Amino acid sequence: MANKNKPILHGYFRSSCSWRVRIAFALKGIEYDQVAVNLIKDGGQQLTEQYKTLNPMQQVPAVEVDGITLSQSLAVIQYIDETRPGPRLLPADPKARAHVRMISDLIASGIQPVQNLYVLQKIGAEKVPWAQHFINRGFQALEPILKQTSGKYCVGDEISMADICLVPQVYNAERFKVDVSQYPTIKRLNETLLEVEAFKLSHPSRQPDTPADLRA
Amino acid sequence: MANKNKPILHGYFRSSCSWRVRIAFALKGIEYDQVAVNLIKDGGQQLTEQYKTLNPMQQVPAVEVDGITLSQSLAVIQYIDETRPGPRLLPADPKARAHVRMISDLIASGIQPVQNLYVLQKIGAEKVPWAQHFINRGFQALEPILKQTSGKYCVGDEISMADICLVPQVYNAERFKVDVSQYPTIKRLNETLLEVEAFKLSHPSRQPDTPADLRA
Repeated sequence: MANKNKPILHGYFRSSCSWRVRIAFALKGIEYDQVAVNLIKDGGQQLTEQYKTLNPMQQVPAVEVDGITLSQSLAVIQYIDETRPGPRLLPADPKARAHVRMISDLIASGIQPVQNLYVLQKIGAEKVPWAQHFINRGFQALEPILKQTSGKYCVGDEISMADICLVPQVYNAERFKVDVSQYPTIKRLNETLLEVEAFKLSHPSRQPDTPADLRA
Repeated sequence: MANKNKPILHGYFRSSCSWRVRIAFALKGIEYDQVAVNLIKDGGQQLTEQYKTLNPMQQVPAVEVDGITLSQSLAVIQYIDETRPGPRLLPADPKARAHVRMISDLIASGIQPVQNLYVLQKIGAEKVPWAQHFINRGFQALEPILKQTSGKYCVGDEISMADICLVPQVYNAERFKVDVSQYPTIKRLNETLLEVEAFKLSHPSRQPDTPADLRA
């Protein structure tokens, strides 16, 4: 019998939004099951009628948890944070929380959606320069913000949802050959965070659905 | 002498993200000052070096409040909700909060960013069908979700951040001639909300920077 309290993550190893949720689960020490939704195979398994009932946007992730099904990674992360013990993913101070949400949304609304798979499929041949343009534009805005808000991590010295958003976005940037060394604060934070166990365990190179040739 | 507690909203009458913040202020009964940032005039006033210090993404809104400057409308709305009295913009129940955030993010990450001014300027001649496509795609996902979560409003019978996101997105849909009657739940909720005083007062047709020919 399935553990009713064990969340099920429907995701894809290389999806940056799926990775965000995996990091949150790892930071909180939450056990979960993964169901792979291959965004490429069979024309995209997220497009099946069956998956559509889990996430009508036909994107990953979708998370079954506590009897409800949630899509939108930041909604999932904040739900987990508000209902589970373990380290806070949003700080207690309202101004620090606002900075965490501002940085998270800059990435989750300002960068990721304009370089995601579905948009790039619509863009066609010009997809690489398009993705590079929008990632660079976002990072040019993010760099001065992080210079002000960061300590050891994106906002002060505690890991937060902002860090959870940053690392997968840098991974996407590198896939599109964006030169991240132009953004020294982003680069420094990313390197620091990649040493943290929760970010390592959840990395796209180490998931059950990671193809053999991409495994770490 | 300026009231240090009175927030300053840098926005544009027709920006859907600025409108979200205006609705939140109106629902909470918060007085604020508006500074107009005309996104069209002078090639776009959001592109000046002066504005860039307020919001490095060079988008509206930016809000000066309690000694900090915040961009990203949902971060602003949640900060206001967490620090000001008045009706809650996010419900107390964690599952209901998660639904509010899921709907808000579906709009704020899944629809608005791919049909905003900057992206459409990059798309060029095909901008109207592009915007229609992405709004319809989002509304096709939103409709079955709202059918499940809605009561009088998007999530149950209390106005929330989800409603704050919905109405300005429907306004954008209508600007791009999307047939909203295809989405009966969205249409019904939008019509109900447009009768609420906070949504009326904050409407793009009634702002200090609304041009005379567009005034209600």
